[in-house]
Amino acid sequence: MKNSIGTSITMTLFGESHGPAVGVVLDGLAPGLPVDEAFIAKRLSQRRPSGPADTARVEQDRFQLVSGVYQGRTTGTPLVILIPNENVRSADYSQLRHVARPSHADYTAQMKYHGFQDPRGGGHFSGRITAGIVAAGAICEQALAARGIRVATHILRCGGAEDAPFTDVVSEIGAIEGRRFPVIRDIEAQIEAAVLAAKQEQDSIGGVIQTGVCGLPAGLGEPWFDSLEGVLSRAVFAIGGIKGIEFGAGFGLAELRGSQANDPFRMQDGRVVTSTNRSGGINGGITNGMPVIFNMAVKPTPSISRTQQTVDFTAGKDVDLSLTGRHDPAIIRRICPVVTALVCVVLCDQLALRYGTDYLTAL
Amino acid sequence: MKNSIGTSITMTLFGESHGPAVGVVLDGLAPGLPVDEAFIAKRLSQRRPSGPADTARVEQDRFQLVSGVYQGRTTGTPLVILIPNENVRSADYSQLRHVARPSHADYTAQMKYHGFQDPRGGGHFSGRITAGIVAAGAICEQALAARGIRVATHILRCGGAEDAPFTDVVSEIGAIEGRRFPVIRDIEAQIEAAVLAAKQEQDSIGGVIQTGVCGLPAGLGEPWFDSLEGVLSRAVFAIGGIKGIEFGAGFGLAELRGSQANDPFRMQDGRVVTSTNRSGGINGGITNGMPVIFNMAVKPTPSISRTQQTVDFTAGKDVDLSLTGRHDPAIIRRICPVVTALVCVVLCDQLALRYGTDYLTAL
Amino acid sequence: MKNSIGTSITMTLFGESHGPAVGVVLDGLAPGLPVDEAFIAKRLSQRRPSGPADTARVEQDRFQLVSGVYQGRTTGTPLVILIPNENVRSADYSQLRHVARPSHADYTAQMKYHGFQDPRGGGHFSGRITAGIVAAGAICEQALAARGIRVATHILRCGGAEDAPFTDVVSEIGAIEGRRFPVIRDIEAQIEAAVLAAKQEQDSIGGVIQTGVCGLPAGLGEPWFDSLEGVLSRAVFAIGGIKGIEFGAGFGLAELRGSQANDPFRMQDGRVVTSTNRSGGINGGITNGMPVIFNMAVKPTPSISRTQQTVDFTAGKDVDLSLTGRHDPAIIRRICPVVTALVCVVLCDQLALRYGTDYLTAL
Amino acid sequence: MKNSIGTSITMTLFGESHGPAVGVVLDGLAPGLPVDEAFIAKRLSQRRPSGPADTARVEQDRFQLVSGVYQGRTTGTPLVILIPNENVRSADYSQLRHVARPSHADYTAQMKYHGFQDPRGGGHFSGRITAGIVAAGAICEQALAARGIRVATHILRCGGAEDAPFTDVVSEIGAIEGRRFPVIRDIEAQIEAAVLAAKQEQDSIGGVIQTGVCGLPAGLGEPWFDSLEGVLSRAVFAIGGIKGIEFGAGFGLAELRGSQANDPFRMQDGRVVTSTNRSGGINGGITNGMPVIFNMAVKPTPSISRTQQTVDFTAGKDVDLSLTGRHDPAIIRRICPVVTALVCVVLCDQLALRYGTDYLTAL
Repeated sequence: MKNSIGTSITMTLFGESHGPAVGVVLDGLAPGLPVDEAFIAKRLSQRRPSGPADTARVEQDRFQLVSGVYQGRTTGTPLVILIPNENVRSADYSQLRHVARPSHADYTAQMKYHGFQDPRGGGHFSGRITAGIVAAGAICEQALAARGIRVATHILRCGGAEDAPFTDVVSEIGAIEGRRFPVIRDIEAQIEAAVLAAKQEQDSIGGVIQTGVCGLPAGLGEPWFDSLEGVLSRAVFAIGGIKGIEFGAGFGLAELRGSQANDPFRMQDGRVVTSTNRSGGINGGITNGMPVIFNMAVKPTPSISRTQQTVDFTAGKDVDLSLTGRHDPAIIRRICPVVTALVCVVLCDQLALRYGTDYLTAL
Repeated sequence: MKNSIGTSITMTLFGESHGPAVGVVLDGLAPGLPVDEAFIAKRLSQRRPSGPADTARVEQDRFQLVSGVYQGRTTGTPLVILIPNENVRSADYSQLRHVARPSHADYTAQMKYHGFQDPRGGGHFSGRITAGIVAAGAICEQALAARGIRVATHILRCGGAEDAPFTDVVSEIGAIEGRRFPVIRDIEAQIEAAVLAAKQEQDSIGGVIQTGVCGLPAGLGEPWFDSLEGVLSRAVFAIGGIKGIEFGAGFGLAELRGSQANDPFRMQDGRVVTSTNRSGGINGGITNGMPVIFNMAVKPTPSISRTQQTVDFTAGKDVDLSLTGRHDPAIIRRICPVVTALVCVVLCDQLALRYGTDYLTAL
Repeated sequence: MKNSIGTSITMTLFGESHGPAVGVVLDGLAPGLPVDEAFIAKRLSQRRPSGPADTARVEQDRFQLVSGVYQGRTTGTPLVILIPNENVRSADYSQLRHVARPSHADYTAQMKYHGFQDPRGGGHFSGRITAGIVAAGAICEQALAARGIRVATHILRCGGAEDAPFTDVVSEIGAIEGRRFPVIRDIEAQIEAAVLAAKQEQDSIGGVIQTGVCGLPAGLGEPWFDSLEGVLSRAVFAIGGIKGIEFGAGFGLAELRGSQANDPFRMQDGRVVTSTNRSGGINGGITNGMPVIFNMAVKPTPSISRTQQTVDFTAGKDVDLSLTGRHDPAIIRRICPVVTALVCVVLCDQLALRYGTDYLTAL
Repeated sequence: MKNSIGTSITMTLFGESHGPAVGVVLDGLAPGLPVDEAFIAKRLSQRRPSGPADTARVEQDRFQLVSGVYQGRTTGTPLVILIPNENVRSADYSQLRHVARPSHADYTAQMKYHGFQDPRGGGHFSGRITAGIVAAGAICEQALAARGIRVATHILRCGGAEDAPFTDVVSEIGAIEGRRFPVIRDIEAQIEAAVLAAKQEQDSIGGVIQTGVCGLPAGLGEPWFDSLEGVLSRAVFAIGGIKGIEFGAGFGLAELRGSQANDPFRMQDGRVVTSTNRSGGINGGITNGMPVIFNMAVKPTPSISRTQQTVDFTAGKDVDLSLTGRHDPAIIRRICPVVTALVCVVLCDQLALRYGTDYLTAL
């Protein structure tokens, strides 16, 4: 399943940046879940470019529920959401037919698809495809919330600005939802300034984002190849801009002694908790009931206007490349709702595997 | 497939630390591949405790080829390797029946298996299970080598010592193979001293390891959920001690501008190469023909002799825990051949998916 | 993957009879395959009701290529075909909200989806969904034909009429393609008369269909759970009307001695052949190079106008049911292109698994 | 997963007829299920040759529980059962290295594995592999029985003898369990005589077997590719000797009108039932709560002593073949416990998918 993820609940992505539409199939979802179109639209709007710090290509993201929804609820059969492409300017990309943008997928797509790939706007590799993830994730997010499970992603570090890490998650999610950028502390202006500075210099910047999940039962995940870390990692690396992931204290654990790194277990109000959470809520691949927390490295957007060295892979020669299209100087703000959505889909699948296909249904 | 990984070639792990045996099923491998028992034994010996810096539980790792091998070659049908458990001292672990080792899987196993799990020596969560991975990976490693694909893992950072990162890979693999510890530079004594110091203090240490792969064709991997980064991550997070992974410059990319992070493409001897490799050989989830390089954070071993705070999860009360069994003060040396083996299995699967089931067969 | 089939190439179905559209995702197909819209339309027209022997609900089956096609060829990324629903008369089905049509999926859908299923026109269980299979299969059929592999399905037995079984396949496919009904012999009038007689009596009829495949290489399939028989069976039982399948002489083999049932191998023009083909081209789950031939039992359409005994499953009481909608008195003609399409998709997947993802690409 | 079946619970087969052992991995089974070694041994003994009507190769089928069992119960981690091969006479098979037994897998294995397959005793294609299925299935069978779900398989037709079809299932299972052959009526002598007559003439016979399942909840299975018919078919076609399957009235439905074929729904003691069961308990791929009943065609064993025409596929020439090894003149008796076991594994998987991984655990 090349463009699919999941076992009991599966998500399949399709579409090209400049084709008729992008979209998603969400199969195996419990029947009877509310499908709240306003909430889907809200989440899509958070992924959408919306200011001087984003690309000038703005779409309405009007979406169509093609199947799997009846009278406002999921039917239990495949749910398809179609998001037509609008505001397409293919001419911008014509030069990229044979010229590889450095650190982009142009060359690797050529090697994989032998020139038959749709090159317009990155084709199937476009960030545009993530709109389908966001739409599908919004339905899953509300299903999880009904079970007391909350998921959010914020910018932890970008352009010199540093956000507070998740600790309590629930209250921090509230803070994030109230801001224009997904951050806990009041660092929006700082981030925006850094992005605009990069844009000014025809450049781009990256950063680190952090996802927190609270309310998950202990006992989710598998010992070896379906460790929750493994399953979540596979999901988030779908996003080309993500180049690293760490759970809990992550790479910081490499510098600690066991006595400093271990999370002591304690009883609290009759529940088992840990007094620290350097494991990020996962031991041996399985949730321990503490918040699941992980960080991801987001590289700077590879499409920049500065002149770069590259090759014309059809002609087989070195060339210079100066991009003229509309590009994001940073995707770090827009990537947060995508990661949240991905995680929501993965967690619904994990819960369905463990507790059955009707677990999320309000019966 | 809970303890399995792969699509065309699949690996399934089984066994408990103190049961009759641990082992592995490797299914879908091309027929006709040499099965070199001496090489398997060599790789197993590199995973085995072997000095004062390791656990005192040493096993011979005698293995039995149960199926899938005929006249010294793979048949193409499921290959099973059984590694009987020896030198088992279950009494050591009796106290752990209800007491959760901090940051270990004791508590999460309880929540998942409701007390039916085998608690002796960590049961199915034991690092002992990785012997099966190493045995299976050794066969895959030789199959890859026959195609010019080389894989190795070394300690990049541990206890203050810093190794050279992979650059050329091929020559560096030679250096690693010649040493007592998997390192490129002469830092073995430094690492060993750090491990022994931790042991002396009834503590443990972690570190960072790095895997390099060279010789892979461009075009391997998929755009979204089967990105090579996603597939490799899912594999390595099978190992409980790994808490982070980053490809190429990874988290370092978060601090760079696009103009600093992008890898310029260049023509070299008629081939497309990049003049830097901050992407770790992967663009858009797909190999670009440069070495695939990634780092992993290894947390300090959670089983330490120091007294720790924890809970008795059956009694539901706080207790102190002083472990008395035989434990590794560091697994960082032993984890390297395990990761190499995992990666070899994953890559054989990727090649079989792309080029067919007979690709690795010497026809 | 609940509505998906395949490993290297996967097909996912979606849609409801009276929703906006039905459709299909075909993922993993080789890049560069021609997408012949006229041929897709032709195959769809063969599935479409077209005379007095079919339902009065006729749709144009206008289809839209949403993704995965660029400049008339497959890109290698997910190919989505959308077939909007037209000519929908939902009022016909309102009574079925709580009343189970005997031998139809109304009651089982209720037990599975708890009343959240779309009941209009059978919802996701409607035969209308098979339009997606036919569209996807048409692309695969032409890809196979380019490799010399031909697939066809004909009515073997219906309403007293008996067709000639496949022997040579290639020439017989020619005969089938030339007729109004998928039959080899001139028995169309006979079948049509039988269907109309059943319709006249407010009843329905079934029959036996036969699929033949020629040109497959020997060595396709797996020894146990991915035997070609198992893979094909799983595919065709997707169609609710099919209640039996037999390969080669099938149930007839149960009456024979081994000496009568075995197919002697012979050398012919340097190739290994069998002088009979009672095995249907498959030994031990794997193709032997002879035509793959199998028969399927098609039950009479369960939706009939005659008054039938059933239950109102919401009220929990016995009721009588007299259907008034538009129904097929027989689906046997329309099911043939669906089975052919399914088999084409399955075989493309088998070939891609064995020979790699580019096997079908014209490079 | 080439030798595996299942999604939440998976079964993987391994081993060769003349290798060290055959065996099975059963992964994903609920923790806490009793593992009754005497019952496993009983089911294995029913698969074992045991009289003049069977092969002279008799093994004790001593089995070893390698993993996944602790204190007599499943742990929830992979359960491996190893059944060592004994009584091996490889010399018998040496002639088959290059000579294809008609309708056996010798030639197709050669085409698939290029001569690297283990040819001794049929290698991985040997019926011996089914011992693993029976052992795994015995554990599942008892887990199902604890939930009131019963599965049995009997000979419906063989050598002119005709058994009673399943109607009540529960009481009929009792009758079958009490007999020397798996039959409901007293037709053992008749079948045995037919088998011995075939043996006398150096020939073999087949027949038809029937499986019945009672106690399944309604709502199990999926609308399209995971229809229960599809899932069960894929499982039983793993057995090379099975060449056809039909559910309920199966091929007989092809001759009926809808009014004759449909099963009227009725209320009975507050439950929905059907007054007939020509659908075999499945509508639209999903269980309706009635017994699931299906028939399978078993071809006569292909290995017969009579001289047969075939080819030497290495030399590429026609040859005559007179087998001298030990072979079953009929496998129909021995195949019944294998099919029952397969069905038990498949149903446990279906239940775990629907109701969660702990559904079968006695918590």
